[in-house]
Amino acid sequence: MKNIKLLIEFDGTNYAGWQKQPKINTVQQTMEKAIADLTNEKIELIGSSRTDAGVHARGFTANFKTNSSIPSDRFREALNCRLPDDIVILKSNEVPIEFHSRYSSKGKKYSYTILNTYQRAAINRNYVYHIKNNLDINLMKEAAQYFIGNHDFSAFRSTGSSAKTTERIIYESEIIKQGQMIIYNVHGNGFLYNMVRTMVGTLINVGIKKNTPEDIEKIILSKDRSKAGQCVSGCGLCLEEVYY
Amino acid sequence: MKNIKLLIEFDGTNYAGWQKQPKINTVQQTMEKAIADLTNEKIELIGSSRTDAGVHARGFTANFKTNSSIPSDRFREALNCRLPDDIVILKSNEVPIEFHSRYSSKGKKYSYTILNTYQRAAINRNYVYHIKNNLDINLMKEAAQYFIGNHDFSAFRSTGSSAKTTERIIYESEIIKQGQMIIYNVHGNGFLYNMVRTMVGTLINVGIKKNTPEDIEKIILSKDRSKAGQCVSGCGLCLEEVYY
Repeated sequence: MKNIKLLIEFDGTNYAGWQKQPKINTVQQTMEKAIADLTNEKIELIGSSRTDAGVHARGFTANFKTNSSIPSDRFREALNCRLPDDIVILKSNEVPIEFHSRYSSKGKKYSYTILNTYQRAAINRNYVYHIKNNLDINLMKEAAQYFIGNHDFSAFRSTGSSAKTTERIIYESEIIKQGQMIIYNVHGNGFLYNMVRTMVGTLINVGIKKNTPEDIEKIILSKDRSKAGQCVSGCGLCLEEVYY
Repeated sequence: MKNIKLLIEFDGTNYAGWQKQPKINTVQQTMEKAIADLTNEKIELIGSSRTDAGVHARGFTANFKTNSSIPSDRFREALNCRLPDDIVILKSNEVPIEFHSRYSSKGKKYSYTILNTYQRAAINRNYVYHIKNNLDINLMKEAAQYFIGNHDFSAFRSTGSSAKTTERIIYESEIIKQGQMIIYNVHGNGFLYNMVRTMVGTLINVGIKKNTPEDIEKIILSKDRSKAGQCVSGCGLCLEEVYY
């Protein structure tokens, strides 16, 4: 029995997220089917996170146990032939049998892309969240700094979260401008349900001057979900890397 | 009667090109329907070029004549509400009654994006042409220069072209690298049927060293389609600008 780790890029546009669900198209079941076709085994693919509908990934990780004699590094090519256009395996390798994509993870890095133009876009529309109102990027940069550190992020969690604790450590939290895009990069030891999208919704409130940068600190301390911004659309979100 | 010019961005992925065709989804008929819904007139929308299936545009132009009392600059917003996500009007304005999007055009600029990586991509896959073989970008840069000037481009034209002459002037022809992308930018006074895509196929032949940069000149002079490279996939192509 071998434990195989996969590094995966996917375009989440046409999926109801990662997690297997009856009668809905998800990344997990699409991949499990491809692996079962290849190995003739019924396998369980463990994903590093439960991404939501429309969310993308450049560095999703998953692992599965197999008795297949296929060399570990060949799963990449063998699976890519069996996967649809919007999922691609970037790497496959053997890991210790106790490795678990979710539990072994030490952190994750996400990006969130806002298109800040008067007009919505046609090209690349599935990878950005369009905001018409002019956003003050300097205020947003200042605001993003307040997320760094060890905090209780209850105010940024959607209900339905099963996490035992609500404390998380944020290592990196920065806003950058790239042409007409405003990109938020965030790296933490873990994230609560909808946490990144709610942090972005709150940063947008700072960008439109509904909140000040200093309000971020107050909102964190309040632990009150109603004080934070809305949970913005999944399509701007991309899981960039999972750390082990 | 007013003549309205539209500046249009579209994602061509889900269209069989610009031109109206029975029983197939095209950009022209999608837009004509939206305009007819708005104005209650049966209008004819004249496009600046007949883009093929999968080809995109950031600066397509089209015009139509109308008796509508809607202010010219308001067509943008009024049409955007009626158009699908993958088409967006960037600007609408009144032009002289004799203006014709195709016949009045003095030139066009296209870009073609090659993703040169070992592995295909999931994200952005509809906007790039993936090439696995390592391309020599310096040779391609040198080769691109040979297209500049006034030439007979018969060797780069697919059959089915209705153009009267096969001479075209190329003003700009350059290869640039942007991360893992190789982008070809070309500006000319006009292009024959499939000409840009065949030029790119020929540049790729130089990149894989099947041809030398100097061969471009010989291929042009041969006027022989079989000497040029293949007409590469439409999805890497984008109409960037139409000049008047």
